[in-house]
Amino acid sequence: MTPTLKDVAVLAGVSRSAVSRTFTQGASVSVKMRRKVEQAAEQLGYSPNALASSLTTGRTKLIGLVSNNFHNPVFLEVFDLFTKTLQERDLRPLIVNLSDETEPAASVKMLKQYSVDAVVVASSTLPLSFAKAFHDAGLPVVHTFGRLATSPHVHVVGIDNVECGRMAARTLIERGYTDIGYLGGPPSATSAQDRYHGFTELVSQHPDIKARASYSKGYSFHAGREAMMEQLQGSPAQAYFCADDVLSIGALSAIRDHGLKPAQDIGIIGLNDMEMSRWESFSLTTIRQPIKQIITASVDIVEEMLLEPDRYPEARIFPCRIIERETLKAKHKQMK
Amino acid sequence: MTPTLKDVAVLAGVSRSAVSRTFTQGASVSVKMRRKVEQAAEQLGYSPNALASSLTTGRTKLIGLVSNNFHNPVFLEVFDLFTKTLQERDLRPLIVNLSDETEPAASVKMLKQYSVDAVVVASSTLPLSFAKAFHDAGLPVVHTFGRLATSPHVHVVGIDNVECGRMAARTLIERGYTDIGYLGGPPSATSAQDRYHGFTELVSQHPDIKARASYSKGYSFHAGREAMMEQLQGSPAQAYFCADDVLSIGALSAIRDHGLKPAQDIGIIGLNDMEMSRWESFSLTTIRQPIKQIITASVDIVEEMLLEPDRYPEARIFPCRIIERETLKAKHKQMK
Repeated sequence: MTPTLKDVAVLAGVSRSAVSRTFTQGASVSVKMRRKVEQAAEQLGYSPNALASSLTTGRTKLIGLVSNNFHNPVFLEVFDLFTKTLQERDLRPLIVNLSDETEPAASVKMLKQYSVDAVVVASSTLPLSFAKAFHDAGLPVVHTFGRLATSPHVHVVGIDNVECGRMAARTLIERGYTDIGYLGGPPSATSAQDRYHGFTELVSQHPDIKARASYSKGYSFHAGREAMMEQLQGSPAQAYFCADDVLSIGALSAIRDHGLKPAQDIGIIGLNDMEMSRWESFSLTTIRQPIKQIITASVDIVEEMLLEPDRYPEARIFPCRIIERETLKAKHKQMK
Repeated sequence: MTPTLKDVAVLAGVSRSAVSRTFTQGASVSVKMRRKVEQAAEQLGYSPNALASSLTTGRTKLIGLVSNNFHNPVFLEVFDLFTKTLQERDLRPLIVNLSDETEPAASVKMLKQYSVDAVVVASSTLPLSFAKAFHDAGLPVVHTFGRLATSPHVHVVGIDNVECGRMAARTLIERGYTDIGYLGGPPSATSAQDRYHGFTELVSQHPDIKARASYSKGYSFHAGREAMMEQLQGSPAQAYFCADDVLSIGALSAIRDHGLKPAQDIGIIGLNDMEMSRWESFSLTTIRQPIKQIITASVDIVEEMLLEPDRYPEARIFPCRIIERETLKAKHKQMK
């Protein structure tokens, strides 16, 4: 339906290369040739598009946005921000769904065939080997929500998950809880591992505090609910750091179904501050991850990589902060 | 970084057209030329990709997936299903975020520049003029979740929203509620209008039933909560058809904050049966819209349009059914 470069070439009676050159800034083409091509293009309603321009630049402006979690509502915000930010900069978001993928090789092949200019891996649960495999295959890559490294192999944008673990433990202790728990995401996720390390590190400085830790099956409502159900079978802690908002919301559901009240009977602090955490149904006290800044920085790096493909990799880390709502007791004592 | 067709042409000392022809099935190229090109391609690690093949076919395999609601969690499921289904068929999902768009003309321009082969408009809140504008601009289009028409101008895939309105009213009356309400999405959405018409049509056949109807500001948690808050200021109905699950979840939050119990004090029936409706926090009785079937059918039509661009438009409509959970009283009496 849409006229192609080839159609213009046929109608103008010239080569495709001549059509391409006519629409390429600075390319050499005779006045006569240009006139023929322009007349044919006008007659057909042809306008050089991203595809046509990618012929000459070798760029498609397609940015692959790789995700493997479509069950955590925070990703709806991530998709919203990513697509808007890319659109504003004349780049095009190609969503790559790796929910069922475990092998980087197949994904590299897919991304290569997709002709993306760069890849944003937006996941803390895909192994580091994914971002590395894209990088090694020559695809410029940013690992968003990836693990902070002091010597990064690929660009990383995110938060200091170890510090978030400390922050959560410190907050629970400040509120007067003396028996606290960590309820993390899946053990394979670097975010779950790092938050665990920060949490236990801070707890170890407080010999008077009793602590426990467990991982869940994934970053989902049902994983959080199930993990909290298990805690409630025995004798639960007084408060938990559920290391993600959707896990926290699942845990709250288990707590309420046991006839217990959040904050009053069992405290919960989450992490992300996704839109849903503000819903009055949950009113979740949480650690805010600055998603908008993280995504803006990721797209900034994409643009920089397009200008300078061999750009030295960097880690860009954003601070987090506590958002006070209704699932923790009020501040009780100052931290020693 | 990635070698381009141009790089191969330069290294082989041939024209770009020769490189293109070498990698195009059935195109004419001399044995000597082919050998030169293949050697250069191998040396550079060049492989003809989707971009290169789109040169000759005029096809990019990019399918624009247009959405304007990133606040309704059901769209996370929609994106998951769409991206997986397109990937399985060797098509590429390009997400187009029209959250802030009101003018079809700007969107048509963007989609044209994006070089998509076809467009799926996945929205019941974007005006019909959007799908029509894409169609009129020569872009093959499917309006998913669009309004059923007996004489469709573009392909439509979805449900019979009028029938859903009737089904909801019938269900509420069957459960013994005698004072019922419709709490719809935004008045501009065809889905909200059609569900309203079905609801009031069925109610009009029951002079003993008292009914009321109102629209909300959008398909979001806060719109549903606010609309229910307003009802609770006066004397609310016994049960409501909240014509979308996220509206229902907002309404449930208002009901609980008023110290009332869903089902027991005020009944709620939603529409969609999104993943979250099954969460034990809500356990929402709802009308199931078969999203997976709708998306599979939409992608089927996309593939058919690519083979046959002038294909006669059709409306594909899927039946809905009641999913029994915990926000309505149990079945009370048979419908007369």
